[in-house]
Amino acid sequence: MSERRTKKANGQWALADFKVGVDNVIFSVDTEQNRLLVLLVMRDKAPFLHYWSLPGTLVREGESLENAAYRMLAEKIRAKNLYLEQLYTFGGPRRDPRESAESYGDRYLSVSYFALVRFAEAELVADGVSGIAWYPMSQLPDLAFDHAEILQYGYRRLRNKLEYSPIAFEVLPELFTLGDLYQLYTTVLGEGFADYSNFRSRLLKLGFLKDTGVKVTRGAGRPAALYRFDAEAFAPLKDKPLVFV
Amino acid sequence: MSERRTKKANGQWALADFKVGVDNVIFSVDTEQNRLLVLLVMRDKAPFLHYWSLPGTLVREGESLENAAYRMLAEKIRAKNLYLEQLYTFGGPRRDPRESAESYGDRYLSVSYFALVRFAEAELVADGVSGIAWYPMSQLPDLAFDHAEILQYGYRRLRNKLEYSPIAFEVLPELFTLGDLYQLYTTVLGEGFADYSNFRSRLLKLGFLKDTGVKVTRGAGRPAALYRFDAEAFAPLKDKPLVFV
Repeated sequence: MSERRTKKANGQWALADFKVGVDNVIFSVDTEQNRLLVLLVMRDKAPFLHYWSLPGTLVREGESLENAAYRMLAEKIRAKNLYLEQLYTFGGPRRDPRESAESYGDRYLSVSYFALVRFAEAELVADGVSGIAWYPMSQLPDLAFDHAEILQYGYRRLRNKLEYSPIAFEVLPELFTLGDLYQLYTTVLGEGFADYSNFRSRLLKLGFLKDTGVKVTRGAGRPAALYRFDAEAFAPLKDKPLVFV
Repeated sequence: MSERRTKKANGQWALADFKVGVDNVIFSVDTEQNRLLVLLVMRDKAPFLHYWSLPGTLVREGESLENAAYRMLAEKIRAKNLYLEQLYTFGGPRRDPRESAESYGDRYLSVSYFALVRFAEAELVADGVSGIAWYPMSQLPDLAFDHAEILQYGYRRLRNKLEYSPIAFEVLPELFTLGDLYQLYTTVLGEGFADYSNFRSRLLKLGFLKDTGVKVTRGAGRPAALYRFDAEAFAPLKDKPLVFV
């Protein structure tokens, strides 16, 4: 690439020209089957035709990055309370084959966004795409571009948010047992992230899980108390540094 | 801007063309005067001629985002262990006057980076810029572009890192008293972020502050023990979620 790193005749360095894409890392947890899922779409054009990829789009004239990300998702998924949070920007040279002089010649930069949605409330929209699927993180296909790297970055953010924020309660059903909560953490963080009884006592000590007084029986186990997340009790803790695991 | 949001003749939406900049939010703490500082440079060209701004540059052909950020800093500051971490990407329309059709007509996107450097080891380089300064966060001038917003985002990241990571020990002298440490936290997080005796006992319980056995006297106070950060004792905690305040 040394020929592209030359100074222009006026002694100034040539600036790179960019197109800007947004790519969304959308996670969900299937709490019935205890699987962490990520939303993928099959590409219907070159490059990487028929490869699975993160759902993304290119930013249009006059459009903000965030609006582009929401516009794109609105075409793929209907979900309550889908809040995107910016993840990371990938912008190195040679991350997109369309950069070559034989193609469009522009650099392609990707601003990635992250969300976690409740599985039962998310409805996929298949209109006009060659494929759309919730893929289990444990069985990922080869992904287009550097999307495997973007996805791993998103996965680290998800783990981090589970450790430091009450994001789990956005995907659990409204009423859940402490076993359900532990199972969700295990599904995302892996077996043995914490001992169950430590986890249980730590969470209860934080004071925002309310026992509803109702008990359920799951399988052959003893009846377990149903809890709910008490947003009011959590409010004063919102800006305090907390650890959940 | 509605005239720019039109579809092209072939029915496709017009994509925005971008130039990409990197802007660095570099903090330091003057532990003698207990002031949080940010590195600013005075712009020597339009737009915002003679305004203070975050040190930034535009990405050149063939150059990665991170390399552009380091290239730029190498011209402004000599510091040991300066590690940049990506902060956030600001890319909305109308954030840069050069976007107008009468100017260059491209959108300008800013990928911001963050670092905290040790004040005593950072040497500013004034060559060829109209001004460079460590500005106290409490006395900021008007900043160019949306740099005030980028700076506030960086400030939130700094507070966050102080709460959840041992970043404080990267800017304190190698040997420090617990009072010095508390003062550093107060300088960044503000008075009353935590009670001193709680802070002290929490930090000591984490087990990676080693008493050197040496005592110093600061002003009229009682002699206080000098501690050092024990990186080896911290290593097993590195990937565990921790709270420092």
